[in-house]
Amino acid sequence: MASPSNRKLTGLVAATFTPLTHQGEINLSLIEPYIDYLVENQGVHKVFVNGTTGEGLSLSVDERKRLAEEWCKKGKSKLQQVIVHVGCLSLKDSQELARHAAETGADGIAVISPSFFKPTSADALRQFLQEVAAAAPQLPFYYYHIPAMTGLTLRASDIVEGIEETIPSFRGLKFSSSDLMDFGQCISKCPSHWSQLYGVDEQLLGALVMGASGAVGSTFNYLGNRVNSLLSAFDEGDLRQARTLQLQIQDIISYAVKQGFDLAVNKQLMCQVSGLPLGPPRLPLLPCPGSKAQSIAQRLQQVLGKQKI
Amino acid sequence: MASPSNRKLTGLVAATFTPLTHQGEINLSLIEPYIDYLVENQGVHKVFVNGTTGEGLSLSVDERKRLAEEWCKKGKSKLQQVIVHVGCLSLKDSQELARHAAETGADGIAVISPSFFKPTSADALRQFLQEVAAAAPQLPFYYYHIPAMTGLTLRASDIVEGIEETIPSFRGLKFSSSDLMDFGQCISKCPSHWSQLYGVDEQLLGALVMGASGAVGSTFNYLGNRVNSLLSAFDEGDLRQARTLQLQIQDIISYAVKQGFDLAVNKQLMCQVSGLPLGPPRLPLLPCPGSKAQSIAQRLQQVLGKQKI
Amino acid sequence: MASPSNRKLTGLVAATFTPLTHQGEINLSLIEPYIDYLVENQGVHKVFVNGTTGEGLSLSVDERKRLAEEWCKKGKSKLQQVIVHVGCLSLKDSQELARHAAETGADGIAVISPSFFKPTSADALRQFLQEVAAAAPQLPFYYYHIPAMTGLTLRASDIVEGIEETIPSFRGLKFSSSDLMDFGQCISKCPSHWSQLYGVDEQLLGALVMGASGAVGSTFNYLGNRVNSLLSAFDEGDLRQARTLQLQIQDIISYAVKQGFDLAVNKQLMCQVSGLPLGPPRLPLLPCPGSKAQSIAQRLQQVLGKQKI
Amino acid sequence: MASPSNRKLTGLVAATFTPLTHQGEINLSLIEPYIDYLVENQGVHKVFVNGTTGEGLSLSVDERKRLAEEWCKKGKSKLQQVIVHVGCLSLKDSQELARHAAETGADGIAVISPSFFKPTSADALRQFLQEVAAAAPQLPFYYYHIPAMTGLTLRASDIVEGIEETIPSFRGLKFSSSDLMDFGQCISKCPSHWSQLYGVDEQLLGALVMGASGAVGSTFNYLGNRVNSLLSAFDEGDLRQARTLQLQIQDIISYAVKQGFDLAVNKQLMCQVSGLPLGPPRLPLLPCPGSKAQSIAQRLQQVLGKQKI
Repeated sequence: MASPSNRKLTGLVAATFTPLTHQGEINLSLIEPYIDYLVENQGVHKVFVNGTTGEGLSLSVDERKRLAEEWCKKGKSKLQQVIVHVGCLSLKDSQELARHAAETGADGIAVISPSFFKPTSADALRQFLQEVAAAAPQLPFYYYHIPAMTGLTLRASDIVEGIEETIPSFRGLKFSSSDLMDFGQCISKCPSHWSQLYGVDEQLLGALVMGASGAVGSTFNYLGNRVNSLLSAFDEGDLRQARTLQLQIQDIISYAVKQGFDLAVNKQLMCQVSGLPLGPPRLPLLPCPGSKAQSIAQRLQQVLGKQKI
Repeated sequence: MASPSNRKLTGLVAATFTPLTHQGEINLSLIEPYIDYLVENQGVHKVFVNGTTGEGLSLSVDERKRLAEEWCKKGKSKLQQVIVHVGCLSLKDSQELARHAAETGADGIAVISPSFFKPTSADALRQFLQEVAAAAPQLPFYYYHIPAMTGLTLRASDIVEGIEETIPSFRGLKFSSSDLMDFGQCISKCPSHWSQLYGVDEQLLGALVMGASGAVGSTFNYLGNRVNSLLSAFDEGDLRQARTLQLQIQDIISYAVKQGFDLAVNKQLMCQVSGLPLGPPRLPLLPCPGSKAQSIAQRLQQVLGKQKI
Repeated sequence: MASPSNRKLTGLVAATFTPLTHQGEINLSLIEPYIDYLVENQGVHKVFVNGTTGEGLSLSVDERKRLAEEWCKKGKSKLQQVIVHVGCLSLKDSQELARHAAETGADGIAVISPSFFKPTSADALRQFLQEVAAAAPQLPFYYYHIPAMTGLTLRASDIVEGIEETIPSFRGLKFSSSDLMDFGQCISKCPSHWSQLYGVDEQLLGALVMGASGAVGSTFNYLGNRVNSLLSAFDEGDLRQARTLQLQIQDIISYAVKQGFDLAVNKQLMCQVSGLPLGPPRLPLLPCPGSKAQSIAQRLQQVLGKQKI
Repeated sequence: MASPSNRKLTGLVAATFTPLTHQGEINLSLIEPYIDYLVENQGVHKVFVNGTTGEGLSLSVDERKRLAEEWCKKGKSKLQQVIVHVGCLSLKDSQELARHAAETGADGIAVISPSFFKPTSADALRQFLQEVAAAAPQLPFYYYHIPAMTGLTLRASDIVEGIEETIPSFRGLKFSSSDLMDFGQCISKCPSHWSQLYGVDEQLLGALVMGASGAVGSTFNYLGNRVNSLLSAFDEGDLRQARTLQLQIQDIISYAVKQGFDLAVNKQLMCQVSGLPLGPPRLPLLPCPGSKAQSIAQRLQQVLGKQKI
């Protein structure tokens, strides 16, 4: 098999929601229309499956496998890359999902830190990541850093320093934290062919200026076009326009945060905007009141309508 | 089948460690000698399996089933009660483990709050617990409250208030927090046939005086006799003696905390004291240096040797 | 002058509120009626002035002096002990207040840890305390431990270990944390003539059983009689009665906590119960809506009325 | 007197350290050489006095006044602007310092949120700020937002929204948080003549791209030239150069953070780099071991030497 280094992951990657039926079962029939929506309506061609947005840790191993298979199968001809998140509290489960992702034809795997027992040193976490990566050595491997969810107090730059020595398939990270010094250190200390993907959508511009390769986020499911415009403006050196777009996105997310913006609301907002019946979240998340998502969707329309791009 | 209410869970319950081989696989061959040790050497006749101490959340569903089976099978004639913790991040997994615990002959099941997506209301958590309990309605059901690990900000007394209306098999809780007002509220607001089991070993006496029915903890694996003496002293109204014993236990645990007392150290300490080769912890925990556990074991011997009971 | 060790501080100590006018100025005219109320209506004979409850850190040095003077002067014949809290963010201010407390005839001084720059080691905090104590070496000195307010992560038992070597006037601590192992360690490691005063009113019984000498708290302003009954029941070995009283107090405080129980509410509640016009809190606290304090006062009356003692 | 709006505060502002003697007294004799060093060696012409870096909250009111006077007097002809931080836990003290700053000829005042009793709503904090601002209505007023130190959970953008209605002298904020959405919202919701000064030196570039007017920070005391180069590169649209400079600064600060970078270390580092004998910090901070500051100073020299600008 080819080395996993060939295609550097860049640009926008949507962290996908997981469609559920109203009985709470995964709803594979929606994956294909979801892909079509991302490609055709949002200009998004890469996905990050079974992550935080996808409620990956609330799913069983079997459910995660079936979702990964469907995304890979249906995305094969339509998407450029399908990254499958295989992180679990249990190393065994993560390894099983990693092996399965390789068999299924995923373009890469990502792993979050265990968050119940938290690694107490960079070395402990690296060992955990290494054991998972070794189960699918042919796949590009990404570390998923999201300390606000995991409670991890380690710095990403300490975790990834020298990690290629023990994980030859290491190709970068999804960095979901507002700490741009830690992110900057990842960039300056790591090989340039690694992907430095930023995960705090509302301050992406701050990460781009530090050298981010791309972005993985949930809001790209419904703000993909706008964020693609932001990326283009930035690439063309039009900082004024990039800032205008980032401020628009902040306006929308900030409005949502004031209403109480958790994953249940986020998922319902995607239903509103896309028309895809993605269903409720899984317990312990409760369905969001429709009116709340509707109010945010209206704000989104107002803001996006201000200036067509 | 009989109603689950017959035998109220009281007294000491050891939260058991999970034996692993040096290759990191579960080691079922040690369960029986472990049970013998608890019964014969520590005077402990009840166990709480696959919980925090047992690294339950670091195990796969299949591993947890095999462990539950072995504990139930080997404990059948030797132990009074085997409580199986079936809490998972995934509702589906918890339900599967609950069903399995019922088939396996467990005496009760317990469920921790999901900690990645945290329930944001008592109602959300109650719905999650209810869905698990409904998978094994014949088993006594216990809620496992440990906010320092889960990050939950809800009060246990709010969670359990009226919970019997939706969970008829509800029989009490394992309360692992130093907040004795919340614990006291659980006691005064709940039916007296529920078990109010305290889980912060180092301040058990404070909970007993508030009305605790018993205790579930990891240190009872090696301090069972001493804590049984504490319980007896308290029951007999000898507060002075109970306090002396509690201060001894605090001396040991406090010494351990100063050395850095995580689950890896705790497990190694149990190996030292019991002689059982329980093996290393699973990643992301790293094995504890032998010298650290040895130093704590020495302190334990010094303190326990002070006054034979 | 006599050594500061003569009268060990025990029993109930009310942490007093600071009367303010509606213009936000300190209202010294209310101190004497406040003292009368404590002594005659609540059976409380010792006070802790200018502490957290007294908004000490929101007052100027001059205001704190004038309050300390008034409490000492008016309390001289009516109160048994007046402890003046002299802790400040600024060491200089604390020293000035300590000197002043000695001149004014206070029976002891207490100091909280600075909370903006937090001491990062027990040694750093001990040095700070020592510098303050040295400004009034003839007064009994108490360390005030309240980590939930200060954000301190050090353990009280580490702070006070050996502290008499550098602070000869050290006489004990006010321990406001639910961590009863740390409290127990203070008790077992410290000279028995030191006062171990507990400061979490709602779980006082748990601290008494560990060996607390007394209690300092805000709720004793209006629950003094009930808590005195709790202390008596405990001293007489009537644990059942002590528990009943503690559960009553928990019921009231828990009800208040559900309504949102900050110092502004607490102060207004005292106004309601005592009839003393203590006025609003000082900014950044906002006055509490009267209806909220009224609702809590009603609950208090209901609970206290349940069983006259 | 003229309206306080005339000179918008922009560019680099050094948050100054407070010189102390080895006896712990303020050392006014160093202010003038300190000013000369900033102007001549670091290219810094604006200062923020008695803030976090200046240990303002560890000083007495009198000490703060004397420092403010000296900075204003000696800075009159040499500095462009002297902003005096007058925030205290006590409103009274803040008001007194505000009045004094006006008399002394300060160019503006700034106020941090009280952090012992934390304001629980934007309205509560706005009222506190308003009472301080009203004591010196002729001076430009800045809100100082630093949630990691104050523990405040309110968003700056909520605090400043509409604040000019109650504080006519309001002119902007010093925003010391990595949350660039909150910062962005301050920018898009506030009048353009307000100063949006960023305070996390290590990710200044991320704030510039969002529209920051300038920066207030401690590292500009010894990295002023380098950061001025960063500002120039950014203004000229040379993002590549700006990023290179920001990564250099991150390298230095990140190295310091790994050694343990608190204010004591920061102050000692400034002594090393500047040669100014600024003395130890005040308790509860302990002096930093000289070797630690020396090691960081070496790293700084290495990094700055890499590329002369």
